Amino acid sequence: MISRVLTADLARHVGAQVRIAGWLHRKRQLKSMTFLVIRDRSGLAQVVLASPAEIGAASDLPEETVVAVTGTVAASDQAPGGAEIIHPVITQLSGAAQPPPFDLYRPTVTAALPTILDHAPASLRHPLLRAPFEISAAAIAGFRATLDGLGFIEVSTPKIVESATESGANVFGIDFFGRTAYLAQSPQFFKQALVGVFERVYETGPVFRAEPHDTARHLAEYTSLDAEFGFIEDHHDVMAVLREVTAGMVSAVAERSGAAVELLGIKLPEVPAQIPEIHITDAQELLARHTDEDPRGEPDLAPAHERWLSDWAVREHGSEFLYVTGYPMAKRPFYTHPEPGRPAYSNSFDLLFRGLEIVTGGQRLHRHCDYLAALAERGEDPGPYASYLAVFAAGMPPHGGFAMGLERWTARLTGADNVRRVTLFPRDLHRLSP
Amino acid sequence: MISRVLTADLARHVGAQVRIAGWLHRKRQLKSMTFLVIRDRSGLAQVVLASPAEIGAASDLPEETVVAVTGTVAASDQAPGGAEIIHPVITQLSGAAQPPPFDLYRPTVTAALPTILDHAPASLRHPLLRAPFEISAAAIAGFRATLDGLGFIEVSTPKIVESATESGANVFGIDFFGRTAYLAQSPQFFKQALVGVFERVYETGPVFRAEPHDTARHLAEYTSLDAEFGFIEDHHDVMAVLREVTAGMVSAVAERSGAAVELLGIKLPEVPAQIPEIHITDAQELLARHTDEDPRGEPDLAPAHERWLSDWAVREHGSEFLYVTGYPMAKRPFYTHPEPGRPAYSNSFDLLFRGLEIVTGGQRLHRHCDYLAALAERGEDPGPYASYLAVFAAGMPPHGGFAMGLERWTARLTGADNVRRVTLFPRDLHRLSP
Repeated sequence: MISRVLTADLARHVGAQVRIAGWLHRKRQLKSMTFLVIRDRSGLAQVVLASPAEIGAASDLPEETVVAVTGTVAASDQAPGGAEIIHPVITQLSGAAQPPPFDLYRPTVTAALPTILDHAPASLRHPLLRAPFEISAAAIAGFRATLDGLGFIEVSTPKIVESATESGANVFGIDFFGRTAYLAQSPQFFKQALVGVFERVYETGPVFRAEPHDTARHLAEYTSLDAEFGFIEDHHDVMAVLREVTAGMVSAVAERSGAAVELLGIKLPEVPAQIPEIHITDAQELLARHTDEDPRGEPDLAPAHERWLSDWAVREHGSEFLYVTGYPMAKRPFYTHPEPGRPAYSNSFDLLFRGLEIVTGGQRLHRHCDYLAALAERGEDPGPYASYLAVFAAGMPPHGGFAMGLERWTARLTGADNVRRVTLFPRDLHRLSP
Repeated sequence: MISRVLTADLARHVGAQVRIAGWLHRKRQLKSMTFLVIRDRSGLAQVVLASPAEIGAASDLPEETVVAVTGTVAASDQAPGGAEIIHPVITQLSGAAQPPPFDLYRPTVTAALPTILDHAPASLRHPLLRAPFEISAAAIAGFRATLDGLGFIEVSTPKIVESATESGANVFGIDFFGRTAYLAQSPQFFKQALVGVFERVYETGPVFRAEPHDTARHLAEYTSLDAEFGFIEDHHDVMAVLREVTAGMVSAVAERSGAAVELLGIKLPEVPAQIPEIHITDAQELLARHTDEDPRGEPDLAPAHERWLSDWAVREHGSEFLYVTGYPMAKRPFYTHPEPGRPAYSNSFDLLFRGLEIVTGGQRLHRHCDYLAALAERGEDPGPYASYLAVFAAGMPPHGGFAMGLERWTARLTGADNVRRVTLFPRDLHRLSP
């Protein structure tokens, strides 16, 4: 059997006998001819059935059936890629496919989101619905490559954890050999502990939030891109690394998923050498001065404020990225490092991109006594934190890090209106399958 | 402040004023001098305290305290790396560290495994205990790079799943917004579905097994390296890709974690261009002929048999890797493709490496009707498999794949006698922290 040629390479084989294989993307039956479009991972190819025998051989094949086609490559101006297959012999590789939830060959997708998600294994075959995942795979590769280059090491930390203590977010309980354990909301405690071992660590993996919110940006399970490192001065060192990571991710998307970027018609952002930053108090002053609202003194930014500030950063600094720094300690986790001289505020930041917070990070406390004081101040019993606190008793450098939600990043990059569009099989309050 | 120099680069700065930072690895107080050894992510550096003032400044610092040291670099034959720091000024960056569970500066580790694991954040700082994780990070990078080069795409699939149906292994139940869900034992169903979308996919992530076994090779949570791809002839195509992946992982370990390999004094395996293979029936014949046991007709290999066969492959083929193929269908999951002409056996394989099964893989069924028949034959209700079965009704190519346990791989590579030694924070029947 001759070896398979990808459809994207067809034009390089004009005149030759080849074999392609893929899904029957489209069948168009004209009066005396039938055109098949075959889809494989590289693209589309047209197959021309001219003789009654050829046409008859394909008449029973529904779209989405998997086939191999052996035939001669002919140059053609009308065909995708400038070449098509003539005189084909078709071999059916799958059973006759059942109809997909909507026509996968149409250039646009009009199906509603629930329909798309309910039938994800078929829906995602649509080139427009598949493309975001090529971008997200490229982005994660860029994340890792950038941090590898900066001396970070990849780690794998447990998703099953002992306590439900890390943040205010809701946790999922699990029955762990007869006792209750929890699904990790983040690798925060572990990545900090590992700064004590490796200095610089990152992890890419699932995190779990029992989010009762049914919004376009919350998921019960998502992919968190986490980094943490030691020997920093303050959060600005973390922001500098994140700037490199962000630039590396955008470059990787351009280099590794250019076809998907082109197909979706999206414009990749420029990452400025220095991402502009604004302290939350200054941001609130701006909002008070230029909008109808006065958020001064509030502990956090509302989504509408984030959008306004993103627009402001584009106007004022020509940047689609903006760091908002200094969030009030009251709204940050207990391990956050306060702002020297202004202890109601923190050495923390959010990175806004196209109107949405996609990264949270900052400097952490690193002295054991500071942790005890922080828990005491919040009236929390240090007991459940015993194994975490032991890390800081063992000698830890000043450190910090950040966490990026991969789905939010990809959604912003692709213009998706809902993170579920860039999640293969989303999990939320109402969705546990497929 | 002058910028930090890594200890590994110290010798390049002889004569200059530098600043290093790290953990106080060792303090040796002689009659008129004190030597400090500072450990950072790159290695060790010696600091010489000669004046009473210098000696006094360090007298209160326990080992593992984090410090910055500014001083002059002097060439020294006695110091690690051929250079040391003299006339130091020491700044303490952490609180005074509490004593580690055992001396981290000793060249060997005699602490028992439970001690090591109970105090992992401190124990893992020992260079010998840290090194396996540098190797495992390199291996996972090699896995991804090889598959990227072969046109695979990385995916992230849910760890929270609807049914506990995938295999015979025990599952963890979770309370998912008031209903019962489960932690995924593997991404098997999802990666197959995604072959229908991307043709070639891989995932590196946690999987969960409620293993009641308390052995040196079972964990409740481990990192699975999964790949799956379409348009194969049979399981030999999968074995050929796995051969490339294995070779890529060994190369990456050599290139990216050479220092760890050297420190541990391990010998990396050669991956033969063609990994030898033996059908399970032939393997059982061999065992019957050459050992005291007669495993013919048994559905699986015992661990002792795997060790014998591994030794046999070294003797007979000069290979530390061996494919055992054709495992009886009775011991394989229902989605396994049978061996054409011998349907009691399967188009499946295990990869043995240094006496242990580290990869399982094979060809899967790909026709909807074959799945229905396979479930019926096992007396299983297709109901709980509805969303999985829908994948095959939608048109799927012949496909297959494999799953490698990262911890088992690293254990074999480093000679660890227990997978817990190559797992940062293991989870098992008895262990849920740190």
